Amino acid sequence: MDFKFAKRMSQLRASEIREILKVTERLEVISFAGGLPAPELFPVEEIKEVNRIVLSEEGSKALQYTTTEGYTPLREWIAKRMNSKLRTQFAADNILLTHGSQQALDLSGKVFLDEGDVVLCESPTYLAAISAFRAYGCEFVEVPTDDDGMIPSELEKILEKTERAKIIYVIPEFQNPTGRTWSLERREQLVKAAMKYEVVVIEDNPYGELRFEGETLPSLKSFDKTGCVLCLGTFSKTFCPGYRIGWIAGEKGAIEKYVLVKQGADLQCNTIAQMEIAKYLELYDIDKHIEKIREVYRKRRDIMVKTMEEEFPEGVTFTRPKGGLFAWVELPAHINARDVLEICLKKNVAFVPGGSFFPNGGKENTLRINFSNMPEDRIVEGLKCIAGVLRELI
Amino acid sequence: MDFKFAKRMSQLRASEIREILKVTERLEVISFAGGLPAPELFPVEEIKEVNRIVLSEEGSKALQYTTTEGYTPLREWIAKRMNSKLRTQFAADNILLTHGSQQALDLSGKVFLDEGDVVLCESPTYLAAISAFRAYGCEFVEVPTDDDGMIPSELEKILEKTERAKIIYVIPEFQNPTGRTWSLERREQLVKAAMKYEVVVIEDNPYGELRFEGETLPSLKSFDKTGCVLCLGTFSKTFCPGYRIGWIAGEKGAIEKYVLVKQGADLQCNTIAQMEIAKYLELYDIDKHIEKIREVYRKRRDIMVKTMEEEFPEGVTFTRPKGGLFAWVELPAHINARDVLEICLKKNVAFVPGGSFFPNGGKENTLRINFSNMPEDRIVEGLKCIAGVLRELI
Repeated sequence: MDFKFAKRMSQLRASEIREILKVTERLEVISFAGGLPAPELFPVEEIKEVNRIVLSEEGSKALQYTTTEGYTPLREWIAKRMNSKLRTQFAADNILLTHGSQQALDLSGKVFLDEGDVVLCESPTYLAAISAFRAYGCEFVEVPTDDDGMIPSELEKILEKTERAKIIYVIPEFQNPTGRTWSLERREQLVKAAMKYEVVVIEDNPYGELRFEGETLPSLKSFDKTGCVLCLGTFSKTFCPGYRIGWIAGEKGAIEKYVLVKQGADLQCNTIAQMEIAKYLELYDIDKHIEKIREVYRKRRDIMVKTMEEEFPEGVTFTRPKGGLFAWVELPAHINARDVLEICLKKNVAFVPGGSFFPNGGKENTLRINFSNMPEDRIVEGLKCIAGVLRELI
Repeated sequence: MDFKFAKRMSQLRASEIREILKVTERLEVISFAGGLPAPELFPVEEIKEVNRIVLSEEGSKALQYTTTEGYTPLREWIAKRMNSKLRTQFAADNILLTHGSQQALDLSGKVFLDEGDVVLCESPTYLAAISAFRAYGCEFVEVPTDDDGMIPSELEKILEKTERAKIIYVIPEFQNPTGRTWSLERREQLVKAAMKYEVVVIEDNPYGELRFEGETLPSLKSFDKTGCVLCLGTFSKTFCPGYRIGWIAGEKGAIEKYVLVKQGADLQCNTIAQMEIAKYLELYDIDKHIEKIREVYRKRRDIMVKTMEEEFPEGVTFTRPKGGLFAWVELPAHINARDVLEICLKKNVAFVPGGSFFPNGGKENTLRINFSNMPEDRIVEGLKCIAGVLRELI
C-alpha cells in the first residue's frame, strides 16, 4: 500500500546520531558519537538490591498502573533536589515524570506549538530537540550565541520582530553539542527578555550535576518572576539512561496541561522504574555516586583537551567544557565534517558531524565529540586518528 | 504568566477514567472503573528472579541506552507469537516496541494525521484512543456498530463520501468499552473496504489472549493483502501494565516512519524492562500464566453477568463478553449515567459513564463495567449497589 503519511513526516529525518550508533555497536569502534554515559559506573548491584526490596515491600503495586503524574516520593525528592541545587521553589505538584527528558521536549511541542509557531534556540542546539519540536510544524530561529550563551541584543531584536515566538529553548549548563556554559549575566538577561515578551523558556538541564570545576551558577528558573521558565531534568546522566525517567517542572497551570497530553501519549511512566529510583535515592548516597561519575569524566575531559591541543592541526578550534559530556570542534571552513567522518569510520572511529545541530542548516565544518563513554587510552587513540585525518585534509 | 497554549489544548480534557481512578485509590471503594488487571496474578517472585538474572547476565547493558526499535529477542518473540495466534507473517523488523500500546496510538496520530483528517471508529470506542488522535486535530466519524462489529454497508457509505478518511480504528476482540467481539464475516468485509478505499486500519488487540470461551477468530491482518492493517499489542493485560511495554506491527515502510517519530518522542523504551520480559518469556510458561488469568476473569465475568441478570431492573440491557475486561450497560434513555455515578460514589462504588466513549458525544445513558480488578464477592456487592440506585432512579 502507498501510505499517505501526515505532512509533518516529510520534515523528519532519522537522527544522524542514532544511525551512527548502530555502527558503533561494534566493539572495535572508538565512539565519540553518542551521548552515552560510562556504563561501568552504573550501580548494577545496587539496582539488583532495590528491585528485590521494592518488589518485597510494594509487591504487585510496583507492577500495576499508577497515576500519570508519577510516583509521589520521587517527585518530592526531585522538587527538594532542584530547590537546593537550582534555587527553585518547587513542590511535588510542580513535577511531572516523563519518559526521559526527551519526552518532556515532545510534550512541550504538543502543549505549546501550533503550525508556524517559532522556537528560538541556541546556534547550534540539541539535535533531538529539533526533531521533537519540528514534528509540530514549528519554525526555528537560531539566536546568535557565543561562549557565554545567547547574545542578549540579538535575542531582543529577534523577539521584537518575531510575532509568533512561543518557546525559547536553551541548555545553559555544558550545552549539547558545544559543552558551553552560560554566564550569570546572560542567564538573567534571557529571563528578563522572556518575561518582557511573554515567551516560554524551556531550560533543559541534563548535565548540570556533572560539573568538573568552578561554582554552580543559579538556574534560569531562579530569575523567573512570572512562571515563564519550565525546567527539564533527567536521571539518564546521573543514574541510568535505560530507565527512561526524566521530568518537567514548572507552574501548576502549565504542568496540568502536560499531564493531559501525557495521558494521551502513554498514560504514565514505568511504575517499578519510578519506585526503584526512589528506593535507590533513599538507600544510597547519590551525591557520592555522582562524585564518582564527575571524577571519571573530568579525567576524560582532561585527556581529551590535552590530546586535541597536542594533535589537532592549526586552524582547528575546540571548546574546553567545564562539565557534561561534550566538546565542539570547528574545522577550517572548507572542510566538511561528513567527509572526515567517512574516512574515520573506515578507521573505526566515530563522531557526529555538527551540521545537523543547526535546525536551519549550515556549518558543515563542525563536529561534536562525546568524551564520557570511552576509557582514556581509547580517547587518545581515537583523537589521534581524527587528528591524522584532519592533517591530511587540511 | 498567561500561557498561550497550542490550539489543540482547547480540545483536550482530562481522561474521565484517570480522574475517577484517583477516587478509587481508597481501599473501601469497589471499582468497576479502570481497566486494571488483577494485581494478585502478577508474577512478582518470577520478576524478582528475572531482574536478578538479567542484571547478572547483561550487567550495565541492561541499564544503558539501546535502539529505538527495541530489544531484538523480544521483537522476535512477538512476531512469532502473532504469527501463531493471529495468522500474520511478521518478522522482528516489522515490530516497534512502544511505551504501552497507548503510545502506538499516539505515534499513529503523528505518523498519519494532518489537521482535518478523519478517523473512523466503532461507536462507542476506546476513550484514550480518542484523546491520542484528537491531539492531532482530526475529526471522528463513528461508524454504526452492532454486536458483530461495524456495519459494512454503513462503513462503505461513509468511506464513499469521506474524502479525508485516514485511519479506521477498531478493537475486534472483546472491545473496550463494550466487550463485543467482531464476527468473521465483518472482519473480512472491513479489510476489503479498507483495501478498496486505501485507508489504514489500526487493529488494536490488547485483550485477544483473554478469551473465556469459543474459538479465536482470525485477525483483521490475516485478510490484509495490501499492508493496510497495522496491529497493536501489549504486555499490559497478559503480564504487567506497570512495565509499559507494547508494540506496533506492520509493513516495514510504515514501521520505519513510526521509528522516526518515536526517536523524537522518547528515544526508546526502558531497556531493562524489555530484557526482563524477554527473559521471563524464555524461563517461564506464559501460556500457563495467561490460562490462570483467564480462569479468574472467566469466573468474575460469570458472577458479573449472573448478578446483573438477577439484580438489574427491567429496561437495563448489557453485553455478555466472551473475553477481555469489560461489559457495557445501557440504561433507559432518560437516565444519565453520570447521575448514577454521583450517587454510587457516595456509596463507595465506581464505574465509568459511557458518554465519553463517543467521540462526538451522546448516549449518556450508558456505562462501562470492568470486571477484572475486583474479587467475586465485591463484584456482587458493587453490582447490587448499582442495581439499587438504578431501581430508585427508574
